[in-house]
Amino acid sequence: MSEKLADSTCPVARAVDIVGDKWSLLIIRDAFDGIRRFSQFQRDLGIAKNILAARLRDLVDAGVLRVEPAPGGGAYQEYALTEKGEDLFDLVVSLRQWGQDHAFAPGERHSVLVEEETGQPLPRLSYTTPDGRRVQARQTRVRKASEPAA
Amino acid sequence: MSEKLADSTCPVARAVDIVGDKWSLLIIRDAFDGIRRFSQFQRDLGIAKNILAARLRDLVDAGVLRVEPAPGGGAYQEYALTEKGEDLFDLVVSLRQWGQDHAFAPGERHSVLVEEETGQPLPRLSYTTPDGRRVQARQTRVRKASEPAA
Repeated sequence: MSEKLADSTCPVARAVDIVGDKWSLLIIRDAFDGIRRFSQFQRDLGIAKNILAARLRDLVDAGVLRVEPAPGGGAYQEYALTEKGEDLFDLVVSLRQWGQDHAFAPGERHSVLVEEETGQPLPRLSYTTPDGRRVQARQTRVRKASEPAA
Repeated sequence: MSEKLADSTCPVARAVDIVGDKWSLLIIRDAFDGIRRFSQFQRDLGIAKNILAARLRDLVDAGVLRVEPAPGGGAYQEYALTEKGEDLFDLVVSLRQWGQDHAFAPGERHSVLVEEETGQPLPRLSYTTPDGRRVQARQTRVRKASEPAA
């Protein structure tokens, strides 16, 4: 199955093949939050060590995370997002915004994405074209790889 | 575990609890592509019937899909995105854009998101604030639910 997704002509399928798993998504979220060590991931996620080790290895193999020696030359190694991994920011934001809108009761407390510089919550982010148009599902369709271009 | 995610104060975790699964993500992608019948999902995804039935049921229970009688009064029932489900458009776009950028060789054919009206490929979409600022990971951090507001 994984092989089939990896061969799909659909970019969504190939992305899902690499990151479409609960633990992988939460590891990526944690990496954006600055978590770097195996033991920190383990504590934050409450995940079995063998599963965590396997997911981290897959994400390193996929080029989403890279392994670095701990600063100061300790025995530990750390995991950091590569540039490819940093590009998953949109994915994490989309999960966050959807979760806020649809998985919390009104007034229920949740974590908030804030601007580093000011500490102020970010306003809602929308997908826009380079010339500033917002794009919604109804305005789009998917042209299959087998279809001729318009 | 699922219970733990559902109780998290992190919106990413709660979203992942609902949609953070390969099959669920691909079912949602298919629903955006206009697939509505069990047999169509099954053919498109090549998934075992019992797994498909379980994932569809979970997505209906979560309010992402709703069940509708087939048009024309046939015996079939169909699955359609609810409004909550339609709001997953950003998630599918973020997977698509990342997949295009990082999971295809240069020049390799893939499906493309086009404008319904013109058939032209959409330019790359970026997350922007209502006043048009683009936002990147480095400009942000997550304020935990337990932290006081700035």
